[in-house]
Amino acid sequence: MRAAVMQGPGALALEERSRPEPGPREVLVRITSLGICGSDVSFFRHGRLGHSVFRAPVVLGHEPAGEVVACGSGATRHRPGQRVSVEPGIPCGTCAQCRTGHYNRCADIRFLSDPPHDGAMQEYVVVHEAFAHPVPDRLSDDAAALIEPLSVALWAARRGRIGAGDRVLITGAGPIGLLSAQVARALGATEIAVSDVNPARLAVASDFGATTTILSADAPAAAAEVSPTVLVECSGSPRALADTLPGTAAGGRVVLVGMGPEEVSLPLGLVQQRELTVGGVFRYANTWETGIELAASGRVDLDGLVTDRFPLTGAATALDPDTAVTTSVKTVIDLRD
Amino acid sequence: MRAAVMQGPGALALEERSRPEPGPREVLVRITSLGICGSDVSFFRHGRLGHSVFRAPVVLGHEPAGEVVACGSGATRHRPGQRVSVEPGIPCGTCAQCRTGHYNRCADIRFLSDPPHDGAMQEYVVVHEAFAHPVPDRLSDDAAALIEPLSVALWAARRGRIGAGDRVLITGAGPIGLLSAQVARALGATEIAVSDVNPARLAVASDFGATTTILSADAPAAAAEVSPTVLVECSGSPRALADTLPGTAAGGRVVLVGMGPEEVSLPLGLVQQRELTVGGVFRYANTWETGIELAASGRVDLDGLVTDRFPLTGAATALDPDTAVTTSVKTVIDLRD
Amino acid sequence: MRAAVMQGPGALALEERSRPEPGPREVLVRITSLGICGSDVSFFRHGRLGHSVFRAPVVLGHEPAGEVVACGSGATRHRPGQRVSVEPGIPCGTCAQCRTGHYNRCADIRFLSDPPHDGAMQEYVVVHEAFAHPVPDRLSDDAAALIEPLSVALWAARRGRIGAGDRVLITGAGPIGLLSAQVARALGATEIAVSDVNPARLAVASDFGATTTILSADAPAAAAEVSPTVLVECSGSPRALADTLPGTAAGGRVVLVGMGPEEVSLPLGLVQQRELTVGGVFRYANTWETGIELAASGRVDLDGLVTDRFPLTGAATALDPDTAVTTSVKTVIDLRD
Amino acid sequence: MRAAVMQGPGALALEERSRPEPGPREVLVRITSLGICGSDVSFFRHGRLGHSVFRAPVVLGHEPAGEVVACGSGATRHRPGQRVSVEPGIPCGTCAQCRTGHYNRCADIRFLSDPPHDGAMQEYVVVHEAFAHPVPDRLSDDAAALIEPLSVALWAARRGRIGAGDRVLITGAGPIGLLSAQVARALGATEIAVSDVNPARLAVASDFGATTTILSADAPAAAAEVSPTVLVECSGSPRALADTLPGTAAGGRVVLVGMGPEEVSLPLGLVQQRELTVGGVFRYANTWETGIELAASGRVDLDGLVTDRFPLTGAATALDPDTAVTTSVKTVIDLRD
Repeated sequence: MRAAVMQGPGALALEERSRPEPGPREVLVRITSLGICGSDVSFFRHGRLGHSVFRAPVVLGHEPAGEVVACGSGATRHRPGQRVSVEPGIPCGTCAQCRTGHYNRCADIRFLSDPPHDGAMQEYVVVHEAFAHPVPDRLSDDAAALIEPLSVALWAARRGRIGAGDRVLITGAGPIGLLSAQVARALGATEIAVSDVNPARLAVASDFGATTTILSADAPAAAAEVSPTVLVECSGSPRALADTLPGTAAGGRVVLVGMGPEEVSLPLGLVQQRELTVGGVFRYANTWETGIELAASGRVDLDGLVTDRFPLTGAATALDPDTAVTTSVKTVIDLRD
Repeated sequence: MRAAVMQGPGALALEERSRPEPGPREVLVRITSLGICGSDVSFFRHGRLGHSVFRAPVVLGHEPAGEVVACGSGATRHRPGQRVSVEPGIPCGTCAQCRTGHYNRCADIRFLSDPPHDGAMQEYVVVHEAFAHPVPDRLSDDAAALIEPLSVALWAARRGRIGAGDRVLITGAGPIGLLSAQVARALGATEIAVSDVNPARLAVASDFGATTTILSADAPAAAAEVSPTVLVECSGSPRALADTLPGTAAGGRVVLVGMGPEEVSLPLGLVQQRELTVGGVFRYANTWETGIELAASGRVDLDGLVTDRFPLTGAATALDPDTAVTTSVKTVIDLRD
Repeated sequence: MRAAVMQGPGALALEERSRPEPGPREVLVRITSLGICGSDVSFFRHGRLGHSVFRAPVVLGHEPAGEVVACGSGATRHRPGQRVSVEPGIPCGTCAQCRTGHYNRCADIRFLSDPPHDGAMQEYVVVHEAFAHPVPDRLSDDAAALIEPLSVALWAARRGRIGAGDRVLITGAGPIGLLSAQVARALGATEIAVSDVNPARLAVASDFGATTTILSADAPAAAAEVSPTVLVECSGSPRALADTLPGTAAGGRVVLVGMGPEEVSLPLGLVQQRELTVGGVFRYANTWETGIELAASGRVDLDGLVTDRFPLTGAATALDPDTAVTTSVKTVIDLRD
Repeated sequence: MRAAVMQGPGALALEERSRPEPGPREVLVRITSLGICGSDVSFFRHGRLGHSVFRAPVVLGHEPAGEVVACGSGATRHRPGQRVSVEPGIPCGTCAQCRTGHYNRCADIRFLSDPPHDGAMQEYVVVHEAFAHPVPDRLSDDAAALIEPLSVALWAARRGRIGAGDRVLITGAGPIGLLSAQVARALGATEIAVSDVNPARLAVASDFGATTTILSADAPAAAAEVSPTVLVECSGSPRALADTLPGTAAGGRVVLVGMGPEEVSLPLGLVQQRELTVGGVFRYANTWETGIELAASGRVDLDGLVTDRFPLTGAATALDPDTAVTTSVKTVIDLRD
């Protein structure tokens, strides 16, 4: 099979590798679509991201959809031909975090593309059957791949306890921000404001359910007017947080999704005075089934996010940030032929 | 002003009464629309309902909408002309239940039409300004009145913690069941099944967001197939509960909304084996703002529920259960002229 | 090794069996103490209990403590000699219930002594290392065994959300009721009432933290006086539930722990009027570490519950309900020699 | 009656004032004991604290206990002679925060000693009957006064969801820190670490339930060893927070109680990576009944905190920070003669 292997910062090579074999309770999945995440782009350029550091050739990609083509021993959940969305992290299943339902915090999780684990920018992957989630026919291959970023947005919404009647402000209208807007609407939020520096992105946000759009320059006043009960920070920009947090309503929840600097100054006096809750999110847990249902029932539009598409042979271009134009939202690698 | 006064079981008389005066922090509201609740119909016929017993002439009606026409001393929230939806229960504000946010459980609550308190089947009522909730222009008078039954459905959804990905089964497709279906959809439930004995009601349920409809005769098998994570019992029928509870998923929540017999047999062995949670609801608390927003943004359709309309002079007919036909859903008294 | 094998209802035989071998990530535990549960006694006499039916010879016992004597491949959590309390249910780790932290609801759980799985009334068992919980030296062997019933009480307390300031009423002063009283106290409950038909048991309850004791004949009036915020039903008696539920405070939680008849009549009108929540419990999840800490720090007294002790050769007597006297609370099998 | 009136920063005068009259539903309370809070000391010295600024003579003091001596019209909760602990904030009771149980966030709350409202450093105060909480005889006058700081600790514990099995680290061993340690123990926390710069304070912490004490210089390593599931910051020192937050366990809760600088730098990358939750607290709501019960049942020792006592004529000394010695913990004004 062919695999797009990162050889070093900015260097990618297509290699021929042997197709993996599914072990006990594993299935072999032929990839049909793979979403490209900002973290893939950043790691490919810089060779590092957070705690992950490039040390040896590695395959990127952690947003795969595909079709089950073979089942290992004891793997009974699927039949060959079943289309699936692959959850990229396989936790240990027995540590204290796993046993309490927080498997995203498992210290022994094996996560696709997190070195030394290879990712899914190749024709086949093997995965534990429990994490190869069946998708209905009405979900496209791209949509099945984008259940992963949708999971990020769903998890953030759970952390922020978004529900009926909430006023939600989302800072940053990238893929996660746009998905957060859609998720907020699907969960009953009645005001959904989205801020960004890029007016083109704000126009897209309006199409995806934002009831208010805010240019970043206007954020302080606009946030105060919205008085959000939930603030979902998706930009990673300390400035975006500093501009909008003071507008948050008493008792409001602030969810930190975008990755920014390690240390950030926060108005803790205000956090106390208003009894705000500031929470971080790390990946997701137990989001796939809900994400698939929301997408399949049309509450969330995933296909509409895809603006750029490349074959596996165009992976290097797909990973190049300079490829993106102002109207780019989400890139996928199409492996269907 | 004119008031429709219940003189005894089945007996109603239009009386001329003096218009009430708003006290401190109260407003005088001219009623424009008043929803008729099944409890009004039942109390009017039988002279009793639960703990309420007819002892003296009383005005029924607890689902009023109207327009503020005068403000008492210290009442600064409204200007005359403000259209409002009136929350019918005014709690004491200082007991332990009120202080913890459960004001629906306040032992000293004054509730419109709960004897000896008169209700709103008259041209004017006075109400504490905090419970006269402003509504936007895009909400009709009828919709403003029906925020009350919507509140019942919202409160039940909160008790059942309905959220994204839930599979919800609603037994009984009367106004509360139909509103519960709409609320479930608005909160992200991905499967919404509704059961009823009346096929005409099920057809209406399909129009209001049910993804599956179930004739009561088929309920046991159909409930098992749905395997609901939340069961919202809106019929008051022990049979409906007995037929569907065994199909509830492990960890499922059962919310008892419909009023039935005082004592009902439940499969407690199953409640233990599956770790079900069975909860009762009594009215609602803190639902009006969310209800108004959901209705105003089009997530919930209230106007579509209204099938029968009477002037105040037709109140006796409106309260006669024999007036209802199989396609009747919700009756309102129209006081606008 | 020796094993006490149930041959049929009321029939037990000591057999010599080969010592099991720990598989991957498993440890071999030499049993030192084994608690006898009422369910063991009932299953031994009647050959059935709930869904479990005797079909073939089986080893009973699911409350073991012991010492790790050998570690299978990949089992790195313990060193031989480590004293442990064994959690008797090993879930699959990958189903939806396991992934959300509700592993007690796992349909594929293998539970000691639940046919066809043998239990721990034998000299050795093998168990997955994650479910062999290390205990500190200050915890006795008996106490290590009794973390299992303590877990039942802890899980019930979690389901009832027992916390500071709660008034807790516990019906039934058997081992689970007495442990529930201790747990309630350890969690900050400020009134702890215990009811039972047996005055001797009530005297014990006073020693274990009950602030009020109630003879069952006085339960209706006494429950109304306590006005519990949490009712923990540990007797399995429909009468106990019927007598005390009406006294429960508005918003109260009722937790069903004791196993009684499949169908029980409940005052659902009251459940609605007072917004009660009735929940069932099935075993426990994620309780061992907390249980060990509570016992080791002296918040909960486990040794004090042990009133009867037998060697493995006395297992048949230990399982005979006629052995119990009015002052009996908890029986253990002592396997230390 | 006599009142100790703050005339300006550092200036206090005893004045003769007319005794206030209780209004509708109010009671007149003769003060017996009044706790002095660090915020009183700070406001007295600097003439400002947070949003509060000295503009006109004001009576300080918001931790009063006393005896009801007269009841206004409609005030039926007490009889003269009833000993009470006075909750110092009287909320409006009808705003959105009040109606949802968050009355501490009420924008119209009248709080004793928060200008322009006078406090309780005088012989009598009037208060709404619902906020004059009866105390049993076994609670001393001082203990009744100190229900107020206990409430701060209880509220922080609720925000941190402290429960059975938690490992709690408290930074700062002042009165609130020491009360937080006691509350953590009363709620089932199994490890309770307290850090401070002052070894004398740490010795006191050991007497009040701390299982581990940490000198601030050792905080980073010690916090990592404790790996707290809940961090209760009671010092207001950014350094204390910076030293201990990195040791917090994955999924841990950080509660900000101590007031420090408005802006503080936080390791948000870590907050995300570990999915921490950082929450602020502002006063308290619905804590008095629980606090009184915990103190009356001996779970929390309030009298043991009192190290310094002054008559009303010594109020200026009591408010002078230089009066405190290293062993000082809590000062009260004794008004009993």
